[in-house]
Amino acid sequence: MSDVKFYGAGPRMSRVVVHNGVAYFSGYVAVDAAGKSVTEQTKDILAQIDASLAEVGSSKSRLLEATIWLSDIGTFAEMNAVWESWIVAGSPPSRATVEARLAGPQYGVEIRVLAAV
Amino acid sequence: MSDVKFYGAGPRMSRVVVHNGVAYFSGYVAVDAAGKSVTEQTKDILAQIDASLAEVGSSKSRLLEATIWLSDIGTFAEMNAVWESWIVAGSPPSRATVEARLAGPQYGVEIRVLAAV
Amino acid sequence: MSDVKFYGAGPRMSRVVVHNGVAYFSGYVAVDAAGKSVTEQTKDILAQIDASLAEVGSSKSRLLEATIWLSDIGTFAEMNAVWESWIVAGSPPSRATVEARLAGPQYGVEIRVLAAV
Repeated sequence: MSDVKFYGAGPRMSRVVVHNGVAYFSGYVAVDAAGKSVTEQTKDILAQIDASLAEVGSSKSRLLEATIWLSDIGTFAEMNAVWESWIVAGSPPSRATVEARLAGPQYGVEIRVLAAV
Repeated sequence: MSDVKFYGAGPRMSRVVVHNGVAYFSGYVAVDAAGKSVTEQTKDILAQIDASLAEVGSSKSRLLEATIWLSDIGTFAEMNAVWESWIVAGSPPSRATVEARLAGPQYGVEIRVLAAV
Repeated sequence: MSDVKFYGAGPRMSRVVVHNGVAYFSGYVAVDAAGKSVTEQTKDILAQIDASLAEVGSSKSRLLEATIWLSDIGTFAEMNAVWESWIVAGSPPSRATVEARLAGPQYGVEIRVLAAV
C-alpha cells in the first residue's frame, strides 16, 4: 500500500496525484470546447476541475495554487471573467498566468491547480 | 476554522496561500519598477517576496522552489545577477527559468516561489 | 538543524530541495546531450532525474508532478515516446507540457518534477 494515490492513470500521466494531503493536478485543456472561444474553453476546464476536486474529496474553496497558460495573452481579460465568476470569494488560490503555445492549436488555455484534500 | 490560510485574497487570486507548512505564492511582477529595467524589476519583486515571507512567518533561507518567467530570455544574466546577490548561500531553492510573454508589456520578469513556513 | 534539506546547492539554485516528505527538483536540461535531438536530450534528463531520485531516497514510481517545457511544441510526440517508455505503468505523475524558449539554444527540452520521499 502506497501513500501516493494516482487518479486517472494513463500511459503518459495521471489526471491527479494525491500525497500527504495535497492533490497535484495535470494541466487541463478543454475537451468538448476545444477549438471554441477562450470563454467556452475556460468553462469546460473549470467543470473538469470541479469534477476532479469532488473525486479526490476536495473543493474549489481549498485550492492552493493555479497556473494558467494562454496561447494568446490578449485573451487574459476573457479568461479572467470566467475565472472570477468561478472562484470562491475570500479563498481564491495563488495564481500565475503566462503565455505559452500549447499541445495543439485547438487549445487557447490550459489550467493546472493544486488543492488541499 | 480551515487548515488553509489565504493572505491578500482579491477577486482573482490570493497573494499567498499556506497549507500544511508550505506557502504557495502567486507569480509576482514589479509594481513600482514596472516598465523599468529587468534589474530594477527583479529587485522590486524580491523586495515584495521578502515582505510576504515575513508576513507568513518564513524567510528566504527556507525557499523550496522558484519559477522565473522572463519576457526576453536574453535578460537571463541580468536577472541572475540580482537573484544571486539575494539568495542565501548554501540554501537556495530549486529553480526553473523559461521565456514567456507576461500579462502586460511593462513586465519583463515574473517570479513565483514556494516556501516552508 | 533544519527541516529543509538542500541537495546540490550552487550560487543560483539547489538541484533538489526536500521538505516534509516532498522533493522539489529544479528544471533539468540535458548536459551531455545538449544540442542533440529531443530524443537524446530527454533520455539525458531522465537519467539525471533517476540519479537525483536515488540520491534523495525516492523513485520514479513516486513522482507527484512533472512540468515539461519544449522549445518547439512540434517535438511533443518525440519527447513523449521517451517519456512513456520511462514512466512506471499505473503510477505516472500528473503533468503539464507547454512551449517556451529555454536558457540557451542548445536546449530543446526542460523537465521539472516533484516526488514523494
